[in-house]
Amino acid sequence: MNKHTPQSEFKTPEVTTGPLPSSRKVYVAGDLHPDIRVPVREIDLHPTANESAIPVYDPTGPYTDPAISIDVEKGLARLRTDWVKERSGVEDYEGRDVKPEDNGGAAGKHLARAFPLRHRPMRGAAGKPVTQLEFARAGIVTKEMEYVAIRENLGRKKMLEGAEKTVALGESFGAEIPAFITPDFVREEIAKGRAIIPANINHAELEPMIIGRNFLVKINANIGNSAVASSVEEEVDKMVWAIRWGADTVMDLSTGRNIHNTREWIIRNSPVPIGTVPIYQALEKVGGIAEDLSWEVYRDTLIEQCEQGVDYFTVHAGVRLPYIHLTADRVTGIVSRGGSIMAKWCLAHHRESFLYTHFEEICELMRRYDVSFSLGDGLRPGSIADANDRAQFAELETLGELTKVAWKHGVQVMIEGPGHVPMHKIKVNMTKQLKECGEAPFYTLGPLTTDIAPGYDHITSGIGAAMIGWFGTAMLCYVTPKEHLGLPDRDDVKVGVITYKLAAHAADLAKGHPAAQVRDDALSRARFEFRWEDQFNLSLDPETARDFHDQTLPKEAHKVAHFCSMCGPKFCSMKITAEVRDYAAGMSDNEKKDLERLSREGMAEMSEKYREMGSALYLEEEVVKKANGEL
Amino acid sequence: MNKHTPQSEFKTPEVTTGPLPSSRKVYVAGDLHPDIRVPVREIDLHPTANESAIPVYDPTGPYTDPAISIDVEKGLARLRTDWVKERSGVEDYEGRDVKPEDNGGAAGKHLARAFPLRHRPMRGAAGKPVTQLEFARAGIVTKEMEYVAIRENLGRKKMLEGAEKTVALGESFGAEIPAFITPDFVREEIAKGRAIIPANINHAELEPMIIGRNFLVKINANIGNSAVASSVEEEVDKMVWAIRWGADTVMDLSTGRNIHNTREWIIRNSPVPIGTVPIYQALEKVGGIAEDLSWEVYRDTLIEQCEQGVDYFTVHAGVRLPYIHLTADRVTGIVSRGGSIMAKWCLAHHRESFLYTHFEEICELMRRYDVSFSLGDGLRPGSIADANDRAQFAELETLGELTKVAWKHGVQVMIEGPGHVPMHKIKVNMTKQLKECGEAPFYTLGPLTTDIAPGYDHITSGIGAAMIGWFGTAMLCYVTPKEHLGLPDRDDVKVGVITYKLAAHAADLAKGHPAAQVRDDALSRARFEFRWEDQFNLSLDPETARDFHDQTLPKEAHKVAHFCSMCGPKFCSMKITAEVRDYAAGMSDNEKKDLERLSREGMAEMSEKYREMGSALYLEEEVVKKANGEL
Repeated sequence: MNKHTPQSEFKTPEVTTGPLPSSRKVYVAGDLHPDIRVPVREIDLHPTANESAIPVYDPTGPYTDPAISIDVEKGLARLRTDWVKERSGVEDYEGRDVKPEDNGGAAGKHLARAFPLRHRPMRGAAGKPVTQLEFARAGIVTKEMEYVAIRENLGRKKMLEGAEKTVALGESFGAEIPAFITPDFVREEIAKGRAIIPANINHAELEPMIIGRNFLVKINANIGNSAVASSVEEEVDKMVWAIRWGADTVMDLSTGRNIHNTREWIIRNSPVPIGTVPIYQALEKVGGIAEDLSWEVYRDTLIEQCEQGVDYFTVHAGVRLPYIHLTADRVTGIVSRGGSIMAKWCLAHHRESFLYTHFEEICELMRRYDVSFSLGDGLRPGSIADANDRAQFAELETLGELTKVAWKHGVQVMIEGPGHVPMHKIKVNMTKQLKECGEAPFYTLGPLTTDIAPGYDHITSGIGAAMIGWFGTAMLCYVTPKEHLGLPDRDDVKVGVITYKLAAHAADLAKGHPAAQVRDDALSRARFEFRWEDQFNLSLDPETARDFHDQTLPKEAHKVAHFCSMCGPKFCSMKITAEVRDYAAGMSDNEKKDLERLSREGMAEMSEKYREMGSALYLEEEVVKKANGEL
Repeated sequence: MNKHTPQSEFKTPEVTTGPLPSSRKVYVAGDLHPDIRVPVREIDLHPTANESAIPVYDPTGPYTDPAISIDVEKGLARLRTDWVKERSGVEDYEGRDVKPEDNGGAAGKHLARAFPLRHRPMRGAAGKPVTQLEFARAGIVTKEMEYVAIRENLGRKKMLEGAEKTVALGESFGAEIPAFITPDFVREEIAKGRAIIPANINHAELEPMIIGRNFLVKINANIGNSAVASSVEEEVDKMVWAIRWGADTVMDLSTGRNIHNTREWIIRNSPVPIGTVPIYQALEKVGGIAEDLSWEVYRDTLIEQCEQGVDYFTVHAGVRLPYIHLTADRVTGIVSRGGSIMAKWCLAHHRESFLYTHFEEICELMRRYDVSFSLGDGLRPGSIADANDRAQFAELETLGELTKVAWKHGVQVMIEGPGHVPMHKIKVNMTKQLKECGEAPFYTLGPLTTDIAPGYDHITSGIGAAMIGWFGTAMLCYVTPKEHLGLPDRDDVKVGVITYKLAAHAADLAKGHPAAQVRDDALSRARFEFRWEDQFNLSLDPETARDFHDQTLPKEAHKVAHFCSMCGPKFCSMKITAEVRDYAAGMSDNEKKDLERLSREGMAEMSEKYREMGSALYLEEEVVKKANGEL
């Protein structure tokens, strides 16, 4: 069952590179920091469109830039090392030695090859600001902040200049998305705790991104090997594959052996923030026996991961001893792995969780590396029946308390959310999270809106994700079709990512994000004008769109055909619409007035016909009898 | 390109038969009408579950009953002929001869084989009630009404006796779903126009179903050949395949040749209502030239289809001459095929639509066969940009007028809805439809919540469908992954149906349907207890669920393993939860009180820690400075 590749057979992970169809990567320089180069993907349209290229958000990193040669054995360029060093307040140091237990005791042919290079870690020096939150509070716009400001505007500065301050078209439920994102707006949002830039100072390969309610809705993809399946190569490939299709962050949820080495390969090659659940690795270090966990083992694991460059940690510090029995009557008890590990530890020792009692020490540690909290929802509901119960909300209230403690220490925080929740119970989750957690960003898994569709849980959860994203969730954790059934493979990762990209985009549209509809409109124009290639290229998954089209009309000639397979060549609704336009364009004002009169008269006539028969809304027996000639 | 099978090569359509996994079809007899036999699928669980079989709604017809032998050449048993005849008021007659143009002039090897049997059509005699609406108003509970009442209760009469009249758990936005559906409740809802039973008296093979806001949310699957692809066999197979996975009605949207013969094979073998858009066939009769259409050709087509047994007609009578120019500034103009045909006709003749001017004659005709209206939204938006515009809502207002005219004539009505609509603009569609159309059932396509995901439009629309279903839409028209790109094949039909089943179910849950959550809870219990087989069998698509599980853990032994591939054998959250239950079960009241105190104390301590540092929600510069030792 164990598929870990023996060291001798370990191959360099193969990853997918090259631009997406008809796309160029362009870089935008900063104003405050002219040396930063922010990537934007521009999709070129067919010349007949007579439109500028459409800029889209680009989390794909250097992998889609043909000018950059990729060497997975070396990792990506470490541009952020200088950014961190030049603002001072950090020191580099020898760092912790890798221990056999970091890889679950794997040895010999079972040990995955270590990443070939080793970088000296940095950490914050005592008494100096190091986190984005600390800089933001101190009024300093970091390079990371300007980077994400440019990134959020999608290179559309020009297009948006002159637009209203906020676009009123959507319903934002209190979110305040400006028409144009300035670096100082980013700083303010971070200072208020309403947004985070997860960016460990040791993840020098990172292209910064922001998570907050007043920015584009982001998505996370989970990868990671388990004790029973998958390998290092597969996971590195999945990471690159996930960001190619739009994942904004990636969580490495590996369990079993080789956790340390797998993660190192992933981080060194990742341009997006990497999140982990450190308790998983800590558990491996104590042989998988939850009751053998200790603060010391956990702390050691945090340091190990801080030095590697993990950008955010899921910490289930809200799973407190007093809440555990609240789950006893649930249909599905505790479904979070981290939550159940901590529950087991608490019960075994009959003591309060060490994550809770040592929370301030955790904060102090994470601050020195600028690792962000993702406060875990270890008591999230695992079924419709358990949604919004006391256990879930008790934990959320505690997460609210912990948020403020983390803020006190200058540590950035987001909050994880459910789970399985029927549609009518979703909104209150968002409202309560905003209230309890002082508007810290919400990061939700789904939620799944029904339990009955295993194999389709990317969809049951995509429904909930789009809704909660609209209500204010800042990042949506994807769910793949394999949820509840198995480990996602490459195809599942792609389907999960695309599903969540579309859910996040639907949320941006509904919130009234000022830049969101540009791509919809461009694609719809392409659709209307039968620019098939543009329609494919503008879509979230150009390969699948093209493939589906070709299954019915495979010939190249059909890509320029002014019809599609649904209606065929003789009969086409879009063709007819073109004639409507010609007609309308030729109409005089008098003609328009005539039509309005006609419209009113028709209505009046219909009403008259209806009244003749008795105008009650619901015609009852006597009317029938009348109709039947019985009255 | 034309794949129509020549007559000589025409094979009997092969359809999928046999029960779904671990399922039995049982029949429930009526109380008022003891001869009706209403199918319910019961899913048997593993003996260790110690639970009764779970009843689920069953639209699959005789195909899943191993006791019934299927002969597609003969069609299904015609039980409803007697139902219709015994209530009198109908006459059978010779019927219209099939003309060459009914099959688009196909001849020789291009002509698909006619269905082997011919049944004499029936029609309502003058002055007698014939439609379900007329019977309902007259206080008569028809067999169809009792049938659907039993069907909606899912055989759960016992379970629901003693339940509250309405279940308050959901948010129903004004829908009034009783805990138990009585035949008289069905009658009342139909009499009020709030629900319909689409059931042409000539579709004797039909198993009646109901569409209305106070019943289970239904889904429709579109099939149909086009001028460029597919064949009769494929379409019959797709119909059976669609209902196997849960389609409640099927629309045959065939265009091109052989429309008549294709439809006859479909209806004679369909236990679910069949809908059509008669203007498609009328257009073929005039060689595909919209301006050559006439009331006479259209009327002839209606009669043809009424006699065949089509249960509902999409009629785009709201596409009026005065509204056409309102679409000129749209990004995607008129995207409805029916709408654009009528727009073209109106423009060519500069006359009001004959569907509008002859609307009362259409009503009189449809009444005689009890064909229901599906008043078409020919001006629905085809892009996010065009959602909720004046053209769309002008048409909806007209559909409201027409609804009342149809009701006057005793004809059942539902109303079609959009289209492409961003999430924040969905609700108003439902509210306006209820208001304008006097609560006639709404039947929506999606809506699609973004335009940028061709290849995934089952999902972009599934999001909108779940939401609008929750808000009150009675039937959701599926969208397949091939939407905008090509004709759905068998796999696409299945994915579309399952996606819409889960959306409809999510809506039922959110509305608080009293019976909806039974299946979620049963599946969640199976999940929690590692009853893998039960988990598969209870899911909407057992085959896919099993297949996905087997991709990671293929061995039979793993089906009973108390772990899954996500966590592996040593470490399992569900296993730990079982221990929590044992713990909670052994707790005394004093212990519980101790925990509550601990909970409060922990909170107080955290708050204290936070206050020490200054309790402002957003810690600003001075706090940082203090932390940095600068103050």
